[in-house]
Amino acid sequence: MTAFDFERVGRPGRALQYSYDWKDCVLYALGVGAKLPDELPFLYEQRGPSVLPTFGVLPSFPSLVAAMGDVGANFAQVVHGEHALTVHHPIPARATLTTVATVTDIFDKGKGALILVNCETRGDDDRLLFENRWSIFQIGAGGFGGERGPSARSAPPPADRAPDFEHREVTTAEQAALYRLSGDHNPLHIDPALARTAGFDVPILHGLCTYGFAGRAVLAHACGGDPARLRSLAGRFAGTVLPGDALITRGWQVAPQSYIVQVTKDDGAEVFSHATAEVLPSPEVLPSPEVLPSQ
Amino acid sequence: MTAFDFERVGRPGRALQYSYDWKDCVLYALGVGAKLPDELPFLYEQRGPSVLPTFGVLPSFPSLVAAMGDVGANFAQVVHGEHALTVHHPIPARATLTTVATVTDIFDKGKGALILVNCETRGDDDRLLFENRWSIFQIGAGGFGGERGPSARSAPPPADRAPDFEHREVTTAEQAALYRLSGDHNPLHIDPALARTAGFDVPILHGLCTYGFAGRAVLAHACGGDPARLRSLAGRFAGTVLPGDALITRGWQVAPQSYIVQVTKDDGAEVFSHATAEVLPSPEVLPSPEVLPSQ
Repeated sequence: MTAFDFERVGRPGRALQYSYDWKDCVLYALGVGAKLPDELPFLYEQRGPSVLPTFGVLPSFPSLVAAMGDVGANFAQVVHGEHALTVHHPIPARATLTTVATVTDIFDKGKGALILVNCETRGDDDRLLFENRWSIFQIGAGGFGGERGPSARSAPPPADRAPDFEHREVTTAEQAALYRLSGDHNPLHIDPALARTAGFDVPILHGLCTYGFAGRAVLAHACGGDPARLRSLAGRFAGTVLPGDALITRGWQVAPQSYIVQVTKDDGAEVFSHATAEVLPSPEVLPSPEVLPSQ
Repeated sequence: MTAFDFERVGRPGRALQYSYDWKDCVLYALGVGAKLPDELPFLYEQRGPSVLPTFGVLPSFPSLVAAMGDVGANFAQVVHGEHALTVHHPIPARATLTTVATVTDIFDKGKGALILVNCETRGDDDRLLFENRWSIFQIGAGGFGGERGPSARSAPPPADRAPDFEHREVTTAEQAALYRLSGDHNPLHIDPALARTAGFDVPILHGLCTYGFAGRAVLAHACGGDPARLRSLAGRFAGTVLPGDALITRGWQVAPQSYIVQVTKDDGAEVFSHATAEVLPSPEVLPSPEVLPSQ
Protein backbone atom coordinates (compact mmCIF):
# COMPACT_ATOMS: atom_id res chain seq x y z
CA MET A 1 0.00 0.00 0.00
CA THR A 2 1.11 3.49 -0.72
CA ALA A 3 2.40 5.38 2.32
CA PHE A 4 1.61 9.00 1.67
CA ASP A 5 3.74 11.73 3.19
CA PHE A 6 0.94 13.76 4.75
CA GLU A 7 3.45 16.29 6.06
CA ARG A 8 3.77 17.59 2.51
CA VAL A 9 0.05 18.20 2.11
CA GLY A 10 -0.74 21.89 1.95
CA ARG A 11 2.85 22.94 1.38
CA PRO A 12 3.76 24.46 -1.97
CA GLY A 13 6.23 22.47 -4.05
CA ARG A 14 9.19 24.04 -5.75
CA ALA A 15 8.52 26.32 -8.71
CA LEU A 16 9.02 24.67 -12.10
CA GLN A 17 9.50 26.53 -15.36
CA TYR A 18 7.87 25.61 -18.65
CA SER A 19 9.03 27.23 -21.88
CA TYR A 20 7.13 26.96 -25.14
CA ASP A 21 6.61 28.72 -28.44
CA TRP A 22 4.06 28.79 -31.26
CA LYS A 23 4.96 25.29 -32.44
CA ASP A 24 3.89 23.88 -29.08
CA CYS A 25 0.62 25.81 -29.23
CA VAL A 26 -0.13 24.52 -32.74
CA LEU A 27 0.88 20.96 -31.86
CA TYR A 28 -1.52 21.08 -28.90
CA ALA A 29 -4.31 22.52 -31.03
CA LEU A 30 -3.89 19.69 -33.58
CA GLY A 31 -3.69 17.21 -30.72
CA VAL A 32 -7.13 18.25 -29.47
CA GLY A 33 -8.58 18.21 -32.97
CA ALA A 34 -8.43 21.82 -34.23
CA LYS A 35 -9.76 21.97 -37.79
CA LEU A 36 -9.11 24.02 -40.90
CA PRO A 37 -10.23 26.39 -42.19
CA ASP A 38 -12.30 27.58 -39.21
CA GLU A 39 -9.56 27.38 -36.59
CA LEU A 40 -6.71 28.80 -38.67
CA PRO A 41 -5.78 31.40 -36.02
CA PHE A 42 -4.87 28.52 -33.67
CA LEU A 43 -2.77 26.77 -36.33
CA TYR A 44 -0.82 29.58 -37.99
CA GLU A 45 1.92 31.49 -36.21
CA GLN A 46 1.38 34.64 -38.24
CA ARG A 47 -2.11 34.87 -36.73
CA GLY A 48 -0.43 34.98 -33.32
CA PRO A 49 -1.13 32.12 -33.14
CA SER A 50 -4.18 32.39 -30.96
CA VAL A 51 -3.79 29.98 -28.09
CA LEU A 52 -6.54 27.62 -27.07
CA PRO A 53 -7.43 28.37 -23.44
CA THR A 54 -7.13 24.69 -22.57
CA PHE A 55 -3.44 24.82 -23.58
CA GLY A 56 -3.18 26.02 -19.96
CA VAL A 57 -3.27 22.42 -18.75
CA LEU A 58 0.18 21.73 -20.25
CA PRO A 59 2.51 24.03 -18.29
CA SER A 60 1.23 22.61 -15.00
CA PHE A 61 1.68 18.95 -15.93
CA PRO A 62 5.37 18.64 -14.91
CA SER A 63 4.48 20.33 -11.61
CA LEU A 64 1.65 17.85 -11.07
CA VAL A 65 4.02 14.94 -11.61
CA ALA A 66 6.54 16.43 -9.18
CA ALA A 67 3.88 17.12 -6.54
CA MET A 68 2.54 13.58 -6.79
CA GLY A 69 6.05 12.29 -6.27
CA ASP A 70 6.54 14.59 -3.28
CA VAL A 71 3.63 13.05 -1.37
CA GLY A 72 4.61 9.49 -2.34
CA ALA A 73 1.89 8.83 -4.91
CA ASN A 74 2.53 6.21 -7.56
CA PHE A 75 1.99 7.76 -10.96
CA ALA A 76 1.78 4.33 -12.59
CA GLN A 77 -1.52 3.53 -10.84
CA VAL A 78 -3.54 6.67 -11.21
CA VAL A 79 -6.47 7.84 -13.26
CA HIS A 80 -7.44 11.42 -13.86
CA GLY A 81 -10.72 11.93 -12.04
CA GLU A 82 -11.63 15.57 -12.50
CA HIS A 83 -10.04 18.67 -13.91
CA ALA A 84 -10.68 22.38 -13.52
CA LEU A 85 -8.81 25.10 -15.36
CA THR A 86 -9.41 28.78 -14.70
CA VAL A 87 -7.77 31.26 -17.04
CA HIS A 88 -7.29 34.77 -15.67
CA HIS A 89 -5.51 36.30 -18.67
CA PRO A 90 -5.11 35.17 -22.28
CA ILE A 91 -2.24 32.74 -22.71
CA PRO A 92 0.68 34.09 -24.75
CA ALA A 93 1.95 32.14 -27.78
CA ARG A 94 5.50 32.14 -26.47
CA ALA A 95 6.60 32.33 -22.87
CA THR A 96 8.50 30.85 -19.99
CA LEU A 97 5.93 30.32 -17.26
CA THR A 98 6.41 29.29 -13.66
CA THR A 99 4.11 26.87 -11.87
CA VAL A 100 3.86 26.08 -8.19
CA ALA A 101 1.86 22.97 -7.30
CA THR A 102 0.35 22.24 -3.91
CA VAL A 103 -1.23 18.95 -2.90
CA THR A 104 -4.18 20.37 -0.99
CA ASP A 105 -5.84 17.13 0.15
CA ILE A 106 -5.52 13.38 0.09
CA PHE A 107 -8.92 11.84 0.71
CA ASP A 108 -9.62 8.21 1.56
CA LYS A 109 -12.23 6.89 -0.84
CA GLY A 110 -11.95 3.29 0.34
CA LYS A 111 -10.98 1.67 -2.96
CA GLY A 112 -8.47 4.38 -3.61
CA ALA A 113 -7.08 7.72 -2.61
CA LEU A 114 -8.22 10.99 -4.14
CA ILE A 115 -5.34 13.41 -4.42
CA LEU A 116 -6.16 17.05 -5.09
CA VAL A 117 -3.43 19.21 -6.54
CA ASN A 118 -3.73 22.92 -7.15
CA CYS A 119 -1.31 24.48 -9.63
CA GLU A 120 -0.80 28.22 -10.01
CA THR A 121 0.97 29.35 -13.16
CA ARG A 122 2.48 32.80 -13.48
CA GLY A 123 4.22 34.80 -16.19
CA ASP A 124 7.44 36.79 -16.11
CA ASP A 125 5.78 39.65 -14.27
CA ASP A 126 4.55 37.27 -11.55
CA ARG A 127 0.96 37.84 -12.66
CA LEU A 128 -1.28 34.82 -12.11
CA LEU A 129 -2.19 33.63 -15.61
CA PHE A 130 -4.14 30.48 -14.87
CA GLU A 131 -4.87 27.81 -12.28
CA ASN A 132 -5.33 24.09 -12.69
CA ARG A 133 -7.01 21.88 -10.15
CA TRP A 134 -6.22 18.22 -10.72
CA SER A 135 -8.22 15.47 -9.02
CA ILE A 136 -6.22 12.29 -9.31
CA PHE A 137 -7.49 8.92 -8.14
CA GLN A 138 -4.84 6.45 -7.08
CA ILE A 139 -6.24 2.96 -7.41
CA GLY A 140 -5.83 0.68 -4.37
CA ALA A 141 -4.38 3.40 -2.18
CA GLY A 142 -7.40 3.96 0.08
CA GLY A 143 -8.19 2.51 3.49
CA PHE A 144 -5.62 4.55 5.37
CA GLY A 145 -8.19 5.97 7.75
CA GLY A 146 -8.42 9.42 6.22
CA GLU A 147 -11.43 11.63 5.59
CA ARG A 148 -13.65 10.80 2.64
CA GLY A 149 -13.81 14.43 1.55
CA PRO A 150 -16.70 16.20 -0.08
CA SER A 151 -19.09 14.54 -2.48
CA ALA A 152 -18.40 14.72 -6.17
CA ARG A 153 -19.37 17.87 -8.01
CA SER A 154 -22.84 17.89 -9.45
CA ALA A 155 -23.95 19.73 -12.56
CA PRO A 156 -26.76 17.83 -14.22
CA PRO A 157 -27.87 19.11 -17.61
CA PRO A 158 -31.41 20.56 -17.55
CA ALA A 159 -33.76 17.65 -18.18
CA ASP A 160 -36.49 19.81 -19.66
CA ARG A 161 -34.80 21.38 -22.66
CA ALA A 162 -32.49 20.78 -25.56
CA PRO A 163 -28.91 22.01 -25.31
CA ASP A 164 -28.05 25.48 -26.58
CA PHE A 165 -25.31 23.94 -28.66
CA GLU A 166 -24.30 20.49 -29.79
CA HIS A 167 -21.00 19.80 -31.50
CA ARG A 168 -19.93 16.39 -32.84
CA GLU A 169 -16.42 15.55 -33.94
CA VAL A 170 -14.65 12.29 -34.67
CA THR A 171 -11.24 11.70 -33.14
CA THR A 172 -8.68 9.92 -35.31
CA ALA A 173 -7.07 6.56 -34.66
CA GLU A 174 -3.83 8.52 -34.12
CA GLN A 175 -5.36 11.17 -31.81
CA ALA A 176 -3.62 9.91 -28.67
CA ALA A 177 -0.32 9.39 -30.54
CA LEU A 178 -0.48 13.02 -31.58
CA TYR A 179 -1.74 14.39 -28.25
CA ARG A 180 1.02 12.68 -26.29
CA LEU A 181 3.64 14.74 -28.16
CA SER A 182 2.34 17.63 -26.04
CA GLY A 183 3.93 16.11 -22.97
CA ASP A 184 1.90 13.32 -21.33
CA HIS A 185 3.82 10.25 -22.53
CA ASN A 186 1.96 7.72 -20.38
CA PRO A 187 2.20 4.50 -22.45
CA LEU A 188 -1.40 3.63 -21.54
CA HIS A 189 -2.32 5.83 -24.50
CA ILE A 190 -0.17 4.05 -27.11
CA ASP A 191 1.01 0.63 -25.91
CA PRO A 192 -1.48 -2.16 -26.71
CA ALA A 193 0.11 -4.66 -24.29
CA LEU A 194 0.21 -2.19 -21.43
CA ALA A 195 -3.37 -1.13 -22.12
CA ARG A 196 -4.51 -4.76 -21.88
CA THR A 197 -2.67 -5.16 -18.57
CA ALA A 198 -4.56 -2.11 -17.32
CA GLY A 199 -7.87 -3.70 -18.36
CA PHE A 200 -8.51 -2.00 -21.70
CA ASP A 201 -8.85 -3.72 -25.08
CA VAL A 202 -6.78 -1.04 -26.78
CA PRO A 203 -4.91 2.12 -25.72
CA ILE A 204 -7.29 4.85 -24.53
CA LEU A 205 -7.40 8.56 -25.23
CA HIS A 206 -6.04 10.99 -22.63
CA GLY A 207 -8.81 12.52 -20.50
CA LEU A 208 -7.26 15.91 -21.15
CA CYS A 209 -7.50 15.31 -24.90
CA THR A 210 -11.26 14.84 -24.55
CA TYR A 211 -11.18 17.95 -22.34
CA GLY A 212 -9.47 19.87 -25.15
CA PHE A 213 -12.17 18.81 -27.63
CA ALA A 214 -14.80 19.99 -25.14
CA GLY A 215 -12.99 23.29 -24.69
CA ARG A 216 -12.89 23.88 -28.45
CA ALA A 217 -16.63 23.21 -28.68
CA VAL A 218 -17.38 25.69 -25.87
CA LEU A 219 -15.04 28.21 -27.47
CA ALA A 220 -16.75 27.93 -30.84
CA HIS A 221 -20.36 27.91 -29.65
CA ALA A 222 -20.35 29.93 -26.44
CA CYS A 223 -17.43 32.33 -26.91
CA GLY A 224 -17.67 33.27 -30.57
CA GLY A 225 -14.27 31.65 -31.07
CA ASP A 226 -12.57 34.29 -28.90
CA PRO A 227 -10.11 32.57 -26.55
CA ALA A 228 -10.17 35.55 -24.18
CA ARG A 229 -13.80 34.74 -23.37
CA LEU A 230 -13.38 31.19 -22.03
CA ARG A 231 -12.69 31.69 -18.35
CA SER A 232 -12.99 28.19 -16.95
CA LEU A 233 -13.88 24.62 -17.75
CA ALA A 234 -14.33 22.05 -15.00
CA GLY A 235 -15.70 18.53 -15.02
CA ARG A 236 -15.24 14.82 -14.43
CA PHE A 237 -13.70 12.17 -16.66
CA ALA A 238 -16.65 9.81 -16.50
CA GLY A 239 -15.86 7.21 -19.12
CA THR A 240 -13.31 5.79 -21.49
CA VAL A 241 -12.72 7.27 -24.93
CA LEU A 242 -10.88 5.28 -27.57
CA PRO A 243 -8.97 6.94 -30.39
CA GLY A 244 -11.38 6.99 -33.31
CA ASP A 245 -14.48 7.56 -31.16
CA ALA A 246 -16.83 10.43 -31.91
CA LEU A 247 -17.23 13.06 -29.19
CA ILE A 248 -20.45 15.03 -28.87
CA THR A 249 -20.18 18.14 -26.71
CA ARG A 250 -23.45 19.71 -25.58
CA GLY A 251 -23.86 22.96 -23.67
CA TRP A 252 -26.79 24.45 -21.79
CA GLN A 253 -26.61 28.11 -20.86
CA VAL A 254 -27.85 28.30 -17.27
CA ALA A 255 -26.83 31.88 -16.52
CA PRO A 256 -25.54 34.72 -18.71
CA GLN A 257 -21.94 33.62 -18.18
CA SER A 258 -22.36 29.98 -17.26
CA TYR A 259 -22.90 26.77 -19.16
CA ILE A 260 -23.45 23.21 -18.11
CA VAL A 261 -21.40 20.99 -20.40
CA GLN A 262 -21.55 17.31 -21.21
CA VAL A 263 -19.51 15.14 -23.57
CA THR A 264 -20.86 11.80 -24.73
CA LYS A 265 -19.93 9.20 -27.30
CA ASP A 266 -22.25 8.13 -30.12
CA ASP A 267 -23.70 5.40 -27.90
CA GLY A 268 -24.74 8.04 -25.37
CA ALA A 269 -22.14 7.09 -22.77
CA GLU A 270 -20.98 10.13 -20.80
CA VAL A 271 -17.22 10.64 -20.92
CA PHE A 272 -16.96 14.17 -19.47
CA SER A 273 -19.74 14.96 -17.04
CA HIS A 274 -20.77 17.21 -14.18
CA ALA A 275 -19.07 19.90 -16.17
CA THR A 276 -19.40 23.65 -16.16
CA ALA A 277 -17.88 26.42 -18.24
CA GLU A 278 -17.68 30.08 -17.33
CA VAL A 279 -17.60 32.46 -20.26
CA LEU A 280 -17.05 36.20 -20.43
CA PRO A 281 -19.29 38.53 -22.40
CA SER A 282 -18.27 39.55 -25.88
CA PRO A 283 -16.13 42.72 -25.71
CA GLU A 284 -18.50 44.58 -28.04
CA VAL A 285 -21.39 44.15 -25.64
CA LEU A 286 -19.46 45.36 -22.62
CA PRO A 287 -20.77 48.71 -21.45
CA SER A 288 -18.44 51.47 -22.55
CA PRO A 289 -16.72 53.42 -19.76
CA GLU A 290 -18.96 56.45 -20.29
CA VAL A 291 -22.08 54.52 -19.42
CA LEU A 292 -20.64 52.65 -16.46
CA PRO A 293 -22.29 53.74 -13.21
CA SER A 294 -20.19 56.28 -11.43
CA GLN A 295 -18.20 55.01 -8.47
CA MET B 1 16.23 39.43 -61.83
CA THR B 2 18.20 37.30 -59.49
CA ALA B 3 21.95 37.68 -59.77
CA PHE B 4 23.40 34.34 -58.80
CA ASP B 5 26.85 34.07 -57.27
CA PHE B 6 28.25 31.44 -59.60
CA GLU B 7 31.58 31.49 -57.74
CA ARG B 8 29.87 29.56 -54.96
CA VAL B 9 28.67 26.77 -57.25
CA GLY B 10 30.51 23.54 -56.55
CA ARG B 11 31.92 24.71 -53.23
CA PRO B 12 30.70 23.01 -50.08
CA GLY B 13 28.82 25.24 -47.65
CA ARG B 14 29.54 25.28 -43.95
CA ALA B 15 28.52 22.24 -41.94
CA LEU B 16 25.22 22.64 -40.06
CA GLN B 17 24.10 20.49 -37.18
CA TYR B 18 20.61 19.12 -36.67
CA SER B 19 19.61 17.55 -33.38
CA TYR B 20 16.43 15.56 -32.89
CA ASP B 21 14.90 12.88 -30.73
CA TRP B 22 12.03 10.40 -30.86
CA LYS B 23 9.38 13.12 -30.63
CA ASP B 24 10.62 14.64 -33.90
CA CYS B 25 10.56 11.21 -35.57
CA VAL B 26 6.98 10.58 -34.42
CA LEU B 27 5.85 14.09 -35.37
CA TYR B 28 7.29 13.55 -38.86
CA ALA B 29 5.62 10.13 -39.16
CA LEU B 30 2.24 11.63 -38.24
CA GLY B 31 2.91 14.52 -40.62
CA VAL B 32 3.28 12.10 -43.53
CA GLY B 33 0.21 10.13 -42.52
CA ALA B 34 1.48 7.16 -40.48
CA LYS B 35 -1.46 5.10 -39.25
CA LEU B 36 -2.31 2.98 -36.24
CA PRO B 37 -2.21 0.12 -35.52
CA ASP B 38 -0.03 -1.00 -38.45
CA GLU B 39 2.68 1.62 -38.07
CA LEU B 40 2.95 1.60 -34.28
CA PRO B 41 6.76 1.10 -34.37
CA PHE B 42 7.06 4.52 -36.04
CA LEU B 43 4.81 6.19 -33.46
CA TYR B 44 5.91 4.73 -30.13
CA GLU B 45 9.27 5.54 -28.59
CA GLN B 46 9.47 2.22 -26.73
CA ARG B 47 9.52 0.48 -30.11
CA GLY B 48 12.64 2.50 -30.90
CA PRO B 49 10.87 4.24 -32.46
CA SER B 50 11.58 2.95 -35.91
CA VAL B 51 12.40 5.90 -38.13
CA LEU B 52 10.81 6.34 -41.53
CA PRO B 53 13.62 6.44 -44.12
CA THR B 54 12.16 9.62 -45.61
CA PHE B 55 12.74 11.37 -42.26
CA GLY B 56 16.18 11.83 -43.86
CA VAL B 57 14.89 14.83 -45.81
CA LEU B 58 14.54 16.88 -42.60
CA PRO B 59 18.13 17.23 -41.33
CA SER B 60 19.25 18.59 -44.69
CA PHE B 61 16.54 21.25 -44.98
CA PRO B 62 18.34 23.99 -43.00
CA SER B 63 21.46 23.31 -45.08
CA LEU B 64 19.44 23.63 -48.29
CA VAL B 65 18.09 27.00 -47.15
CA ALA B 66 21.59 28.21 -46.28
CA ALA B 67 23.04 26.99 -49.59
CA MET B 68 20.28 28.71 -51.57
CA GLY B 69 21.08 31.93 -49.75
CA ASP B 70 24.80 31.50 -50.40
CA VAL B 71 24.28 31.54 -54.19
CA GLY B 72 21.79 34.41 -54.04
CA ALA B 73 18.62 32.44 -54.71
CA ASN B 74 15.33 33.87 -53.51
CA PHE B 75 13.60 31.31 -51.35
CA ALA B 76 10.29 33.18 -51.63
CA GLN B 77 9.98 32.36 -55.35
CA VAL B 78 10.90 28.73 -55.60
CA VAL B 79 9.11 25.47 -56.13
CA HIS B 80 10.48 22.05 -55.34
CA GLY B 81 11.02 20.32 -58.67
CA GLU B 82 12.55 16.96 -57.90
CA HIS B 83 13.91 15.16 -54.88
CA ALA B 84 16.18 12.18 -54.39
CA LEU B 85 17.08 10.68 -51.04
CA THR B 86 19.56 7.83 -50.71
CA VAL B 87 19.88 6.22 -47.29
CA HIS B 88 23.12 4.37 -46.63
CA HIS B 89 22.46 3.32 -43.04
CA PRO B 90 19.28 3.19 -40.94
CA ILE B 91 18.50 6.54 -39.36
CA PRO B 92 18.78 6.61 -35.56
CA ALA B 93 15.85 7.80 -33.45
CA ARG B 94 17.98 10.35 -31.61
CA ALA B 95 21.09 12.03 -32.91
CA THR B 96 22.97 15.18 -33.73
CA LEU B 97 23.76 14.95 -37.43
CA THR B 98 25.95 17.18 -39.56
CA THR B 99 25.04 18.19 -43.11
CA VAL B 100 27.16 19.83 -45.77
CA ALA B 101 25.28 21.23 -48.75
CA THR B 102 26.82 22.01 -52.12
CA VAL B 103 25.06 23.82 -54.94
CA THR B 104 26.31 21.65 -57.80
CA ASP B 105 24.64 23.42 -60.74
CA ILE B 106 22.48 26.37 -61.67
CA PHE B 107 20.85 25.66 -65.03
CA ASP B 108 19.08 28.21 -67.21
CA LYS B 109 15.67 26.85 -68.12
CA GLY B 110 14.47 30.03 -69.78
CA LYS B 111 11.43 30.74 -67.60
CA GLY B 112 13.42 30.00 -64.51
CA ALA B 113 16.62 28.72 -63.02
CA LEU B 114 17.05 25.13 -61.88
CA ILE B 115 19.25 24.95 -58.82
CA LEU B 116 20.67 21.57 -57.85
CA VAL B 117 21.81 21.13 -54.28
CA ASN B 118 23.48 18.02 -52.93
CA CYS B 119 23.44 17.47 -49.18
CA GLU B 120 25.54 14.88 -47.38
CA THR B 121 24.51 14.08 -43.83
CA ARG B 122 26.85 12.32 -41.43
CA GLY B 123 26.65 11.00 -37.89
CA ASP B 124 28.97 11.44 -34.92
CA ASP B 125 31.46 8.97 -36.36
CA ASP B 126 31.62 10.91 -39.64
CA ARG B 127 29.93 7.99 -41.41
CA LEU B 128 27.78 9.07 -44.36
CA LEU B 129 24.22 8.25 -43.30
CA PHE B 130 22.21 9.66 -46.17
CA GLU B 131 22.29 12.04 -49.14
CA ASN B 132 19.61 14.38 -50.42
CA ARG B 133 19.59 15.83 -53.89
CA TRP B 134 17.26 18.82 -54.13
CA SER B 135 16.18 20.22 -57.51
CA ILE B 136 14.74 23.66 -56.89
CA PHE B 137 13.15 25.75 -59.60
CA GLN B 138 13.34 29.50 -59.10
CA ILE B 139 10.54 31.13 -61.04
CA GLY B 140 11.52 34.03 -63.30
CA ALA B 141 15.23 33.64 -62.67
CA GLY B 142 16.20 32.16 -66.07
CA GLY B 143 17.57 33.90 -69.14
CA PHE B 144 21.02 34.54 -67.72
CA GLY B 145 22.75 32.75 -70.61
CA GLY B 146 23.61 29.57 -68.74
CA GLU B 147 23.47 25.97 -69.87
CA ARG B 148 20.08 24.28 -69.98
CA GLY B 149 21.40 21.16 -68.30
CA PRO B 150 20.29 17.58 -68.84
CA SER B 151 16.72 16.60 -69.67
CA ALA B 152 14.40 15.66 -66.88
CA ARG B 153 14.59 12.16 -65.48
CA SER B 154 12.38 9.63 -67.19
CA ALA B 155 10.86 6.58 -65.56
CA PRO B 156 7.55 5.77 -67.22
CA PRO B 157 5.47 3.04 -65.60
CA PRO B 158 5.19 -0.10 -67.74
CA ALA B 159 2.21 0.45 -70.00
CA ASP B 160 1.49 -3.25 -70.43
CA ARG B 161 0.80 -4.38 -66.89
CA ALA B 162 -0.88 -3.52 -63.65
CA PRO B 163 1.24 -2.22 -60.78
CA ASP B 164 2.67 -4.67 -58.28
CA PHE B 165 1.14 -2.61 -55.52
CA GLU B 166 -1.38 0.17 -55.20
CA HIS B 167 -1.94 2.07 -51.96
CA ARG B 168 -4.60 4.76 -51.47
CA GLU B 169 -4.72 7.13 -48.53
CA VAL B 170 -6.59 10.32 -47.83
CA THR B 171 -4.68 13.29 -46.45
CA THR B 172 -6.45 15.42 -43.85
CA ALA B 173 -7.44 19.07 -44.16
CA GLU B 174 -4.78 19.71 -41.48
CA GLN B 175 -2.04 17.61 -43.13
CA ALA B 176 0.09 20.60 -44.15
CA ALA B 177 -0.47 22.34 -40.79
CA LEU B 178 0.88 19.22 -39.10
CA TYR B 179 3.69 18.55 -41.58
CA ARG B 180 5.05 22.07 -41.30
CA LEU B 181 5.77 21.50 -37.59
CA SER B 182 8.62 19.30 -38.88
CA GLY B 183 10.49 22.38 -40.05
CA ASP B 184 9.33 23.74 -43.42
CA HIS B 185 7.29 26.75 -42.29
CA ASN B 186 6.71 28.21 -45.76
CA PRO B 187 3.37 30.05 -45.39
CA LEU B 188 2.31 28.83 -48.85
CA HIS B 189 1.14 25.71 -47.02
CA ILE B 190 -1.09 27.46 -44.46
CA ASP B 191 -1.84 31.06 -45.43
CA PRO B 192 -4.94 31.39 -47.67
CA ALA B 193 -4.11 34.96 -48.77
CA LEU B 194 -0.51 34.13 -49.63
CA ALA B 195 -1.60 30.99 -51.48
CA ARG B 196 -3.98 33.08 -53.62
CA THR B 197 -1.18 35.53 -54.41
CA ALA B 198 0.90 32.56 -55.55
CA GLY B 199 -1.91 31.44 -57.84
CA PHE B 200 -3.56 28.72 -55.77
CA ASP B 201 -7.15 28.70 -54.54
CA VAL B 202 -6.10 27.39 -51.15
CA PRO B 203 -2.83 26.51 -49.40
CA ILE B 204 -1.15 23.48 -50.96
CA LEU B 205 0.51 20.45 -49.43
CA HIS B 206 4.31 20.32 -49.21
CA GLY B 207 5.85 18.25 -52.01
CA LEU B 208 7.90 16.46 -49.38
CA CYS B 209 4.73 15.55 -47.51
CA THR B 210 3.45 13.77 -50.62
CA TYR B 211 6.94 12.26 -50.87
CA GLY B 212 6.60 10.93 -47.34
CA PHE B 213 3.25 9.31 -48.15
CA ALA B 214 4.90 7.69 -51.21
CA GLY B 215 7.80 6.48 -49.07
CA ARG B 216 5.43 4.86 -46.55
CA ALA B 217 3.63 3.07 -49.38
CA VAL B 218 6.88 1.73 -50.82
CA LEU B 219 8.01 0.74 -47.33
CA ALA B 220 4.79 -1.17 -46.64
CA HIS B 221 4.45 -2.91 -50.00
CA ALA B 222 8.00 -3.35 -51.30
CA CYS B 223 10.07 -3.53 -48.09
CA GLY B 224 7.88 -5.58 -45.78
CA GLY B 225 7.68 -2.53 -43.51
CA ASP B 226 11.41 -2.75 -42.71
CA PRO B 227 12.92 0.76 -42.87
CA ALA B 228 16.42 -0.70 -43.37
CA ARG B 229 15.30 -2.00 -46.78
CA LEU B 230 14.31 1.31 -48.44
CA ARG B 231 17.53 2.55 -49.96
CA SER B 232 16.37 5.40 -52.15
CA LEU B 233 13.35 7.24 -53.48
CA ALA B 234 13.68 9.78 -56.29
CA GLY B 235 11.12 11.56 -58.42
CA ARG B 236 9.49 14.73 -59.62
CA PHE B 237 6.78 16.86 -58.02
CA ALA B 238 4.51 16.91 -61.03
CA GLY B 239 1.31 18.44 -59.71
CA THR B 240 -0.40 20.23 -56.88
CA VAL B 241 -1.83 18.36 -53.90
CA LEU B 242 -4.31 20.06 -51.61
CA PRO B 243 -4.73 19.05 -47.98
CA GLY B 244 -7.65 16.62 -47.99
CA ASP B 245 -6.79 15.06 -51.36
CA ALA B 246 -6.42 11.32 -51.71
CA LEU B 247 -3.01 10.03 -52.77
CA ILE B 248 -2.68 6.76 -54.69
CA THR B 249 0.84 5.35 -54.80
CA ARG B 250 1.51 2.62 -57.36
CA GLY B 251 4.70 0.61 -57.77
CA TRP B 252 5.96 -1.61 -60.58
CA GLN B 253 8.90 -3.90 -59.81
CA VAL B 254 11.19 -3.58 -62.83
CA ALA B 255 14.24 -5.37 -61.37
CA PRO B 256 14.76 -7.42 -58.21
CA GLN B 257 15.70 -4.30 -56.24
CA SER B 258 14.06 -1.58 -58.28
CA TYR B 259 10.56 -0.14 -58.55
CA ILE B 260 9.03 2.50 -60.74
CA VAL B 261 6.72 4.59 -58.57
CA GLN B 262 3.89 6.95 -59.37
CA VAL B 263 1.57 8.99 -57.15
CA THR B 264 -1.73 10.25 -58.52
CA LYS B 265 -4.83 11.88 -57.14
CA ASP B 266 -8.31 10.36 -57.48
CA ASP B 267 -8.81 12.24 -60.75
CA GLY B 268 -5.74 10.51 -62.20
CA ALA B 269 -3.52 13.60 -62.15
CA GLU B 270 0.10 12.70 -61.50
CA VAL B 271 1.59 14.51 -58.51
CA PHE B 272 4.85 12.54 -58.05
CA SER B 273 6.15 11.12 -61.30
CA HIS B 274 9.23 9.78 -63.05
CA ALA B 275 9.95 8.16 -59.74
CA THR B 276 12.09 5.21 -58.79
CA ALA B 277 12.73 3.39 -55.55
CA GLU B 278 15.62 1.11 -54.75
CA VAL B 279 14.92 -1.55 -52.18
CA LEU B 280 17.22 -4.03 -50.47
CA PRO B 281 16.41 -7.73 -50.20
CA SER B 282 14.83 -9.02 -47.05
CA PRO B 283 17.55 -10.09 -44.58
CA GLU B 284 16.12 -13.62 -44.35
CA VAL B 285 16.55 -14.19 -48.09
CA LEU B 286 20.15 -12.99 -48.18
CA PRO B 287 22.48 -15.89 -48.96
CA SER B 288 24.21 -17.07 -45.82
CA PRO B 289 28.01 -16.64 -45.70
CA GLU B 290 28.59 -20.37 -46.21
CA VAL B 291 26.96 -20.38 -49.60
CA LEU B 292 28.52 -17.19 -50.90
CA PRO B 293 30.87 -17.88 -53.79
CA SER B 294 34.49 -18.00 -52.65
CA GLN B 295 36.57 -14.97 -53.45
